[in-house]
Amino acid sequence: MSIEPAKFKIIARDAGSQARTSLLDTPHGQVHTPVFCPVGTTGTVKGILPDRLVELGCSLILANTYHLLLRPGIDVIEKIGGLHKLMAWNGPILTDSGGYQVFSLSPLTKITDASLEFASHVDGQKIRLDPAIATRIQNRLGSDIAMCLDHCPQYPCDSGQLSEAVERTILWAAECKNAHDNPSQMLFGIVQGGTDPALRKRCAEKIIEIDFDGYAIGGLGLGEGHTNMIGTLAATTPLLPVGKPRYLMGVGTPADIIAAVRLGIDIFDCVLPTRNGRNAYAFTKEGPLRLRNTAYTTDTAPIEAGCDCCCCKNFSRAAIRHYFNVGEMLGPILLSIHNIRFYQRLMTEIRSLIAENRFASWADKQMPIYYSLYNSSEGLSKKD
Amino acid sequence: MSIEPAKFKIIARDAGSQARTSLLDTPHGQVHTPVFCPVGTTGTVKGILPDRLVELGCSLILANTYHLLLRPGIDVIEKIGGLHKLMAWNGPILTDSGGYQVFSLSPLTKITDASLEFASHVDGQKIRLDPAIATRIQNRLGSDIAMCLDHCPQYPCDSGQLSEAVERTILWAAECKNAHDNPSQMLFGIVQGGTDPALRKRCAEKIIEIDFDGYAIGGLGLGEGHTNMIGTLAATTPLLPVGKPRYLMGVGTPADIIAAVRLGIDIFDCVLPTRNGRNAYAFTKEGPLRLRNTAYTTDTAPIEAGCDCCCCKNFSRAAIRHYFNVGEMLGPILLSIHNIRFYQRLMTEIRSLIAENRFASWADKQMPIYYSLYNSSEGLSKKD
Repeated sequence: MSIEPAKFKIIARDAGSQARTSLLDTPHGQVHTPVFCPVGTTGTVKGILPDRLVELGCSLILANTYHLLLRPGIDVIEKIGGLHKLMAWNGPILTDSGGYQVFSLSPLTKITDASLEFASHVDGQKIRLDPAIATRIQNRLGSDIAMCLDHCPQYPCDSGQLSEAVERTILWAAECKNAHDNPSQMLFGIVQGGTDPALRKRCAEKIIEIDFDGYAIGGLGLGEGHTNMIGTLAATTPLLPVGKPRYLMGVGTPADIIAAVRLGIDIFDCVLPTRNGRNAYAFTKEGPLRLRNTAYTTDTAPIEAGCDCCCCKNFSRAAIRHYFNVGEMLGPILLSIHNIRFYQRLMTEIRSLIAENRFASWADKQMPIYYSLYNSSEGLSKKD
Repeated sequence: MSIEPAKFKIIARDAGSQARTSLLDTPHGQVHTPVFCPVGTTGTVKGILPDRLVELGCSLILANTYHLLLRPGIDVIEKIGGLHKLMAWNGPILTDSGGYQVFSLSPLTKITDASLEFASHVDGQKIRLDPAIATRIQNRLGSDIAMCLDHCPQYPCDSGQLSEAVERTILWAAECKNAHDNPSQMLFGIVQGGTDPALRKRCAEKIIEIDFDGYAIGGLGLGEGHTNMIGTLAATTPLLPVGKPRYLMGVGTPADIIAAVRLGIDIFDCVLPTRNGRNAYAFTKEGPLRLRNTAYTTDTAPIEAGCDCCCCKNFSRAAIRHYFNVGEMLGPILLSIHNIRFYQRLMTEIRSLIAENRFASWADKQMPIYYSLYNSSEGLSKKD
């Protein structure tokens, strides 16, 4: 295995937009962008074995440092040979810093410029994270891409809080960069600033000054809505270096992704396909299906006509409805499989369209369709 | 697809025992016996997709008529094209009659020579089964092997109850035979009689007189213990026609299976590998592992050295212990996969040994080893 850091090479650019395809070369393999990462919260994409993830077209998986820190713990993961060994996933892994989950799962958080202190949501144990610790943890996990510890405030928050979060994110980014000590791992900086273009600009400039292997846009997809998200992206993405990968964290619906690719985003992660799949919600090009509905009791059609996943090729809606109805694991498993494949098919289509210079006109037509199908949809939850 | 009924052909006999290998030809494919069927209670082997079952070496799957009758219901299954379609399993399926689950899951059962009446354990709905109904249900499910409705009393029970159950089983078998109306489906008769050799003899003779495509031995593995089970089998199996398949229902541990193969049994089903897998219990040649144990926290070994399943080839004990510890589906899934493969490897080994005329001497050595590893083991539950 190479200890060379990942390399990023732009392959094609779309003439009608900022969209691009690229090859991201990591110690665990190549990633074609734009890419969607399923979320492997505690060291597994829930219910899906790694060989199936490969079959579904997944190339990059996200794992949550917060969850892994609590259980099984970093010492354990290091002892057994790292995160790839734990997950039995030999492809590229991206880890977050843990900060986001601290904010969203641990109400007892105490935050200062020095550190985050929180109580484990599992057993109440007091834990302290700071930029150096969060970075060193990811160094030890051995992920291919590590993220800086940032301060992601809730949405909405007042401008004072937002500004404080931006300054702390900048401060911490420098400390993460200093602490980073794994030559085969990329480290990405994160731009915060809510929906405030001025704060985004300040944060982007300062983070870029520190110089990272890639840049993420955090603090979106938190309830600000598609229009605010895209407006913020339109103001922020042009500030980022063209030659480095760009990652929109925790986003999103198909329309969100199409709009963000258009603005030059390369990497996405989101719990939507898996979380919703476990809750009997299926993504299709015709719109969502809710498989607990009795309407599907004797429906012999696949979840989505033409889908090549092992769920659609073999199982009827009736069977999946039955599995959810009786509480069989196969219901959540099959819809997670289909939804991940739906997202991967979308990304494959997007990459082809960019390569063929046809992305912008396709996006003009498809974005509003997907928007009306999914961005107004109930039942979309981002918690995994 | 052929509408020929299944055909049974003995391929090899072991010189030192009654063990034999055979080829059972069904409308959905061939089954090499001795065979172990995993249990697909409600139309799925819990958590495992059909392609994985094939990869694990499964050729015949059992589904429970009782559960399917309650949900999704026989009308639904028929409307969507039968049980194979529901399960997305194109191989052979064996269905039970539903009787056993009525006795074990429905305390409100009223039983007469005419019928079984019970309240659904799901919603309390009153349901009536009789031999003709149970047979017609299986005809409509379209399984490859259907079972007669029998009366399986609890163990222990008094001799009057046991005798009554035998007489009712004989009476019902004739009615099942009369009602059976699916030319592409085998129908097996069932011999009851507890551990009483005289009752077993009477039941076997009467059931054979009716003439079935195969014969099952029911009412064992209910707590009578290995010695009583094998004693009963030794008295009963020689009464069954040599040229028809023999099925020992709901059994058992590796030692039970080896001993029963020795006495000429061809087909087995049991929830042990899946049920125990879901409860963090792994079968290995060295004895059981209980994966919740902290001893495995940093154990990088596979569940069983040398096992070729996708669990053992990829995942460490540490990872599986972690998945059980955090409640990830992958824990139950991976151990179900390994345990099914463990059973299938055992059956493959048994078939090879019989073919090579080396089974009896191997069984002499292995049976006591497996007996001490598993028949005294706690944590083995037969409920699925």
